[in-house]
Amino acid sequence: MTDPADPSGPRPGETAVALPPAGDAQLRFIGRIETPFATRADCPRQGDPDHGPDCLIRLDPVWLPALAGLEEVERLQVFYWLHEARRDLLTQRPRHASAARGTFALRSPVRPNPIGLSTVRLLHRDGPVLVVRGLDCLSGTPLIDLKPLHCPHAAGRATAGEA
Amino acid sequence: MTDPADPSGPRPGETAVALPPAGDAQLRFIGRIETPFATRADCPRQGDPDHGPDCLIRLDPVWLPALAGLEEVERLQVFYWLHEARRDLLTQRPRHASAARGTFALRSPVRPNPIGLSTVRLLHRDGPVLVVRGLDCLSGTPLIDLKPLHCPHAAGRATAGEA
Repeated sequence: MTDPADPSGPRPGETAVALPPAGDAQLRFIGRIETPFATRADCPRQGDPDHGPDCLIRLDPVWLPALAGLEEVERLQVFYWLHEARRDLLTQRPRHASAARGTFALRSPVRPNPIGLSTVRLLHRDGPVLVVRGLDCLSGTPLIDLKPLHCPHAAGRATAGEA
Repeated sequence: MTDPADPSGPRPGETAVALPPAGDAQLRFIGRIETPFATRADCPRQGDPDHGPDCLIRLDPVWLPALAGLEEVERLQVFYWLHEARRDLLTQRPRHASAARGTFALRSPVRPNPIGLSTVRLLHRDGPVLVVRGLDCLSGTPLIDLKPLHCPHAAGRATAGEA
């Protein structure tokens, strides 16, 4: 994750920090995302839930019961693990930017905990496979969570803000 | 995490799954959140970025340079680890709901990777301490990420959708 040959940084003006291995909490990957984007250069700057390409979210079949009711949700927040991102940059200079900014003032994939978040439109569900629009990540990206953006029913609304 | 005495579940109609320990990726806690909410019963259902109580986000000082430019951001997404949540429920019956729904069709804190997300308004920054409104989590909750919701400058906008 801190390979100095990583083309994502640091660039001039950027700063990195040396840290011990992470280990405060453990994630379980729950599936994989399939997009048309095979390299970082292919990824758009922002996904388009209305006009972007159809993408697949393939959950591990063990999670099938956890998808019950999802077809009633139009907009989903998709959480994924940016597995190619380095994690040690304190400041970053986005391409085409004149100066560096703090990592937490940017939405760059390079961050201490490289969690990506996209809002997508759910088009269709076939068992543990979802067809969505609005993703901008690499194909093969590990999935870590799905949350409904708004719940259509009272049972959902009642807990919509809990997390 | 799967203590059957956990009062958060399972309730009648809910289903759990037995899973090996998580370990696909590791998180590093980057700070702690201080709210007026000492127990789960104290937590509101949804944070209010306009009229909610002032809360503190205390980052570990090593991240101070990563906050440069944050004071220009009005709305932030705060990612945190719901450290008291069990992780094994496939279906859940929210309190006051008549039937169970799949975990991914709910925003309950109980989920395979218990990551919480709130949108907050940044009122003030004093070094590594942020004063914000809009949180609904327990005091002491570990912080894992901060992302600007919209970047006010071109440099930020250029990467606003990357993650």
